[in-house]
Amino acid sequence: MIKNNNISLSFFFILSFFVIFNSDLYSQSKDKWTIVIHGGAGNFKRIYISTIDDKLYRSKLNEALKKGSNMLKNGKNAIEVVEAVIVILENSPLFNAGKGAVFNSDGKNILDASIMDGQTLNAGSVSGVYDIKNPIIAARKVMNNSEHVMLSGKGASNFAKSMGLKIVDNSYFFTENSWEKLQYAKEKESDLNLLKEKWYFKHGTVGCVVLDKYGNLAAGSSTGGMTNKKYGRIGATPIIGAGNYANNNTCAVTCTGHGEYFLRYLVAYDLSALLEYKKIKLDEATNYIINKKLKKIGGSGGLIAIDKSGNISIVYNTTGMFRGYSKSNGKTKVMIYNDE
Amino acid sequence: MIKNNNISLSFFFILSFFVIFNSDLYSQSKDKWTIVIHGGAGNFKRIYISTIDDKLYRSKLNEALKKGSNMLKNGKNAIEVVEAVIVILENSPLFNAGKGAVFNSDGKNILDASIMDGQTLNAGSVSGVYDIKNPIIAARKVMNNSEHVMLSGKGASNFAKSMGLKIVDNSYFFTENSWEKLQYAKEKESDLNLLKEKWYFKHGTVGCVVLDKYGNLAAGSSTGGMTNKKYGRIGATPIIGAGNYANNNTCAVTCTGHGEYFLRYLVAYDLSALLEYKKIKLDEATNYIINKKLKKIGGSGGLIAIDKSGNISIVYNTTGMFRGYSKSNGKTKVMIYNDE
Repeated sequence: MIKNNNISLSFFFILSFFVIFNSDLYSQSKDKWTIVIHGGAGNFKRIYISTIDDKLYRSKLNEALKKGSNMLKNGKNAIEVVEAVIVILENSPLFNAGKGAVFNSDGKNILDASIMDGQTLNAGSVSGVYDIKNPIIAARKVMNNSEHVMLSGKGASNFAKSMGLKIVDNSYFFTENSWEKLQYAKEKESDLNLLKEKWYFKHGTVGCVVLDKYGNLAAGSSTGGMTNKKYGRIGATPIIGAGNYANNNTCAVTCTGHGEYFLRYLVAYDLSALLEYKKIKLDEATNYIINKKLKKIGGSGGLIAIDKSGNISIVYNTTGMFRGYSKSNGKTKVMIYNDE
Repeated sequence: MIKNNNISLSFFFILSFFVIFNSDLYSQSKDKWTIVIHGGAGNFKRIYISTIDDKLYRSKLNEALKKGSNMLKNGKNAIEVVEAVIVILENSPLFNAGKGAVFNSDGKNILDASIMDGQTLNAGSVSGVYDIKNPIIAARKVMNNSEHVMLSGKGASNFAKSMGLKIVDNSYFFTENSWEKLQYAKEKESDLNLLKEKWYFKHGTVGCVVLDKYGNLAAGSSTGGMTNKKYGRIGATPIIGAGNYANNNTCAVTCTGHGEYFLRYLVAYDLSALLEYKKIKLDEATNYIINKKLKKIGGSGGLIAIDKSGNISIVYNTTGMFRGYSKSNGKTKVMIYNDE
């Protein structure tokens, strides 16, 4: 009898352990979410950014994080959150995306955006658009409502119109600040030192990566590209695998920087490949890509990433990055400079 | 004395061995070259292709291989060979690239091409061009003479003009065959069975990968995209890492197929990543990507690849591929169907 009781007791303990263990796992995966955003990397030292601008940037990044966090608490999917958060950054004149985008050499704002869903590996992208108010919404429509991944130029605009998206005159994107940058860039076109100057060197992309309660990862970004860009140049932002990548089995990642290097090095997909094929940790992989591979060849910029376990990595080889994150455990932070 | 003589003799033999061994290595690396080309993958059964067409295709593929082989024998670099060989295929009305490209839904020929140099990891690409006679030449000019990787549309044309490239009227690309395909596609736009039909399903890209005498790898491809394409659709061909990739440390690869799948799966870079990070063999990696990953999700198409040791892999999940290779050891072969 005693022996039997002991066995029953053991079974009870083992059973309890599994119930507690599993419910803990369940609640972890059910309530755990993470969001990371950025508004571009560049040569950001405190002496270059006024106190008022510093506050404006932080306030907008906080607004975007709050929006995303609330959506995630309320059970929204990663891909919906990425879109909604980037819309906030596109609508702000502070960042080089949507309203406030930089001008190309013809004095026009030509925009790119892309988005990827880590659950399905579906993706959508628009490049060279000029009258779609929110390119990130268009990118998601391409993903959901077309048989294509990447649409460009007038064709992409026609598609956006057919989807009922908000169309604006190109002048909507105008800001005094971006216009001045163009004039300055044109004046000093042949001056290589220009690249070292503070605002010109600001790599303006906005991006967002999310892990939702259900374990889904998503990534998206939007940009006006490079000031004074010519010849219909396409950078990394609208290219899946270069500017953005998301896969529930590895990570969600979005990049910002000198697009040509990110294109040639497939930075976003490279991160996913390092996690999948080399089984190294997120931080090790992001540091290797940004601070070794890219730095070696002069490729400036950075990335934000979340792995499938919710680990965050924010890495850049410039002196600053507009960035921030929020987690389901209540941790939230917005940063600009290297030393914070 | 005897002992000393023995030692001298041993040294002599060891020295001879190294000299012979090294000179063998040297001559191997100096004279060993490989070229692989393709003219698209698709539903190619013997009953679909007439005897005359069969001969025409084989003759043009042989011409391209001969041109490439002669250049390689004469010490030309991989990247030069890739360009020259693709020019031959672009100039032929047989393939969906350059002259003979398919029509988009507006009845225009809109072309894409890209090229990558495995020695430097430099790359160039043009997308959505309509008046550049040889888009592959424009892609190489973007690589060599611009600070960008990817140029598009009118801007890319303006760049090509500024480089003195041959500009043609869009009507130059016209062929009766491609025009008929468009009319048929428009008639049956909503008929999903159309995709199963023989010629519509021909994925038309042309591509070339090369390993030269000096150990340099290069890859390039050119296409008119999909018949009846809309909305400025961009496929995988002009996207570095999706349609093409070359790295002297891994492989040169170029893809053809349903571009959207190749874009989302970064097929070209994925192959390089599998070789670099998982250290698996070329054939294992190409089979895994084309016959497992892509086939599972319905992504039809294939690729041609050469690894840094000169191994060739030609893999496709369709019923045929216009393809061929030549090697410095004299082996050369042109094929269309599965069973050859």
